[in-house]
Amino acid sequence: MDLIRMLDVDGLAHGLADMSMFPYFDVAHYVVSIMALREQPGVVEVSRRSPFACWFSSMLFCFGGAVLSGVMMAEPPIAPLSNSTAVLLASLIWYLVFYCPWDLLYCCAALLPFRLVLSGMKEVTRTWKVLGGVTQASGKYQDSLLVMIAIGWAKGAGGGLIANFEQLVRGVWKPETNELLKMSYPTKITLMGAVLFSLQHTGYLPLQKHHLMLFYTVFNVVNKSRIVITGSSSSPFALVESVIYRTLFSSSSIHSSSFTALNPDTKKAVANNQLRRYSDSTPSKEPGESRSPSLGSSLRGKKEDRRTAKTKEQEDNGCKKTD
Amino acid sequence: MDLIRMLDVDGLAHGLADMSMFPYFDVAHYVVSIMALREQPGVVEVSRRSPFACWFSSMLFCFGGAVLSGVMMAEPPIAPLSNSTAVLLASLIWYLVFYCPWDLLYCCAALLPFRLVLSGMKEVTRTWKVLGGVTQASGKYQDSLLVMIAIGWAKGAGGGLIANFEQLVRGVWKPETNELLKMSYPTKITLMGAVLFSLQHTGYLPLQKHHLMLFYTVFNVVNKSRIVITGSSSSPFALVESVIYRTLFSSSSIHSSSFTALNPDTKKAVANNQLRRYSDSTPSKEPGESRSPSLGSSLRGKKEDRRTAKTKEQEDNGCKKTD
Amino acid sequence: MDLIRMLDVDGLAHGLADMSMFPYFDVAHYVVSIMALREQPGVVEVSRRSPFACWFSSMLFCFGGAVLSGVMMAEPPIAPLSNSTAVLLASLIWYLVFYCPWDLLYCCAALLPFRLVLSGMKEVTRTWKVLGGVTQASGKYQDSLLVMIAIGWAKGAGGGLIANFEQLVRGVWKPETNELLKMSYPTKITLMGAVLFSLQHTGYLPLQKHHLMLFYTVFNVVNKSRIVITGSSSSPFALVESVIYRTLFSSSSIHSSSFTALNPDTKKAVANNQLRRYSDSTPSKEPGESRSPSLGSSLRGKKEDRRTAKTKEQEDNGCKKTD
Repeated sequence: MDLIRMLDVDGLAHGLADMSMFPYFDVAHYVVSIMALREQPGVVEVSRRSPFACWFSSMLFCFGGAVLSGVMMAEPPIAPLSNSTAVLLASLIWYLVFYCPWDLLYCCAALLPFRLVLSGMKEVTRTWKVLGGVTQASGKYQDSLLVMIAIGWAKGAGGGLIANFEQLVRGVWKPETNELLKMSYPTKITLMGAVLFSLQHTGYLPLQKHHLMLFYTVFNVVNKSRIVITGSSSSPFALVESVIYRTLFSSSSIHSSSFTALNPDTKKAVANNQLRRYSDSTPSKEPGESRSPSLGSSLRGKKEDRRTAKTKEQEDNGCKKTD
Repeated sequence: MDLIRMLDVDGLAHGLADMSMFPYFDVAHYVVSIMALREQPGVVEVSRRSPFACWFSSMLFCFGGAVLSGVMMAEPPIAPLSNSTAVLLASLIWYLVFYCPWDLLYCCAALLPFRLVLSGMKEVTRTWKVLGGVTQASGKYQDSLLVMIAIGWAKGAGGGLIANFEQLVRGVWKPETNELLKMSYPTKITLMGAVLFSLQHTGYLPLQKHHLMLFYTVFNVVNKSRIVITGSSSSPFALVESVIYRTLFSSSSIHSSSFTALNPDTKKAVANNQLRRYSDSTPSKEPGESRSPSLGSSLRGKKEDRRTAKTKEQEDNGCKKTD
Repeated sequence: MDLIRMLDVDGLAHGLADMSMFPYFDVAHYVVSIMALREQPGVVEVSRRSPFACWFSSMLFCFGGAVLSGVMMAEPPIAPLSNSTAVLLASLIWYLVFYCPWDLLYCCAALLPFRLVLSGMKEVTRTWKVLGGVTQASGKYQDSLLVMIAIGWAKGAGGGLIANFEQLVRGVWKPETNELLKMSYPTKITLMGAVLFSLQHTGYLPLQKHHLMLFYTVFNVVNKSRIVITGSSSSPFALVESVIYRTLFSSSSIHSSSFTALNPDTKKAVANNQLRRYSDSTPSKEPGESRSPSLGSSLRGKKEDRRTAKTKEQEDNGCKKTD
């Protein structure tokens, strides 16, 4: 019985691993990515004023991972443009999403059942992209786990990681936000995937590649579907993150330390920092809020939502990314 | 009679194609580029405060195309620095433009006849740069028309395309403007050249290379001379652009579409966008203004010039680029 | 007697040249670099809010030179990550500097004697990094002095040169300041080193490499120790810079020149510039202040320190870099 179930999983995993992303899954990726761009504030205006900048932004949303991993590996970031079929397909979808008569494509794809299916299919491509990045990195740097993780992550979540520069194309500059300062859910899940696939590749994770592909894909698709249906953006890692954060990074010792720094400037700067931190922490009542960046911010998010709905909404839109 | 004329054109085209850009045309390119830099607001102050930043900016104006195409092709962006003669020549001209006693060079070169000749010669170098970019790209990506166009464009109009980062060297940051959002005339003419030379290279354009070089060069020089003499910046493509824009990108359908998007945030964001677009479009009376970005903006430019001359002038200076 | 002394220097130089930077000097470099990051305003908050962004910034402080020279030479900027030992060592030090219980490491390292020793050791690594950059560049561009200087400089002072982008990781954007506009002491000394080592490499400087290494290292260590002890940041090149600046870049002729520019916009822009320059120069009483960027700014720095101590302190912290 167990053997048969095992065989089933194995067959399913092999089937998944042999599946081609082109054209259906790629199309889903382009549709979801370009719709995510369109839902950012100000983009519809840009699409009217400057179709070219809008197209370029769309391409960065679709191929951002390849561009970023190219830059990091000193391989031509222009390379995605050499795949004419993919670029023409993405351009066609860009055109339909932004300029389709009666806005047909966008309206259809925004319907819940379609959005659910497309988002699920897009999550499938993430597995392939992360794995592609890990394999590409391992070809150049055999034993380097860190490089594999970095390239796998960049390839899978490139659109989000280069968001600052993608926004610059559209004339928007938000230096105070980036995916390193405050990771979004897709960036986190991609980082986790990059770590797992790198560990599998170096043999530290006793799992076969197609099994890992299956598990990671199913986890992603299920989670994404939950997010699309419930609209909640609570991370499945919130608890783990919170524990790690409290254990490693919340030593309150820094407050009580007495500095004997050489430089009086330094002393003052640190004192100012402490003062500011103190005044910041005073009004916070929940211990979790100021401790865990993910847990805290999601809680805060919910509360503020009720208060300043409009501002928050704009912000959220600014951060919502599907890379 | 026709044959002789044909032979003449052929001989002329061959003569042009065999012409060396070094040193006279290169010098003209450096002079015009560095003068364009100097005419940007705030640059003279920077040249007094920090000669090094000024020199670096000048080099980006002169070699921006090589730097940008290097980055895009994963070839060393430092490479232009290895051509010592070119760098020393450009540096000498930088010095003379900014620090020459009695400002001799700038005053002379700014006289109409000299400016006309230098601008014309600079336009000749554009042909060589675009062609160089297309050839370089075709060496790496044989059949990829898109890569050829991109690299040819980057090589010919690099200074303009990296303007945001060139300005950053001088401590200026204008995220709201870039050449992708609103293309200037040199950027457009270079893009057109890159498309033509790429089509010629792949055989889609039934024209010999040296003939195309001659036609493109003559077109550029004539147009540039017209702009220098009349001071008008009306694009020769305004009509074509306007027609393309109206046909492809101005579907008013998006206004009337009824959204049934899953996400209420999206709905609101789109509604806001529509509202804003509506209120934007209300006061505009000319139909052409809001439709064509190029035609509209040039018309608007002329009207506003009379009203708020000073602000406009600063803006114009900020955008004037000769890359 | 002279011979023996000569032999001693030679032995010392050989000993220094054969010395390995790993692990002690590298550790000193990491400690000093990450402490310099921590002493920047707002970083302690970032380290609480987003440990990952803080870690990434720290890595850019530690390996910025390798990343920048990689980008410039079209070699993978991710390469430093492939040296796992170095990255783990730097990460450990990052953790101890920011999150150590009772802030032990930072408090100890900030004590004058330790800071003195660590700063001195860090300066020793500069020699190796500059030399490494020059050698790397000469491998690719044999005869190009300029490329050697640029890569040696980038490798030795990378952290400072990419400061704008390192700050962006932490959500800080200060476009008005960069190391090209106003060089800090470490950037200047590294540039000088890059010039010397490049001249030595190409044979223009009649000195043996290990002798130059010794002299440059001793000069750096002595100077840095002086700066750490006295707290003064007066450059040892201030006089030379001032002389060069007055000779080459302060031609007052530009004021008196009569422009006959074609473009009326240009004329106005230049006139505005002159006006602004005139109004700027009126209240300045010292002739040196507006002439020499280094001398002037250091004098100005001292005066303003007394007036607006707090603002200045923040600014200074913002500029203090140890790259």
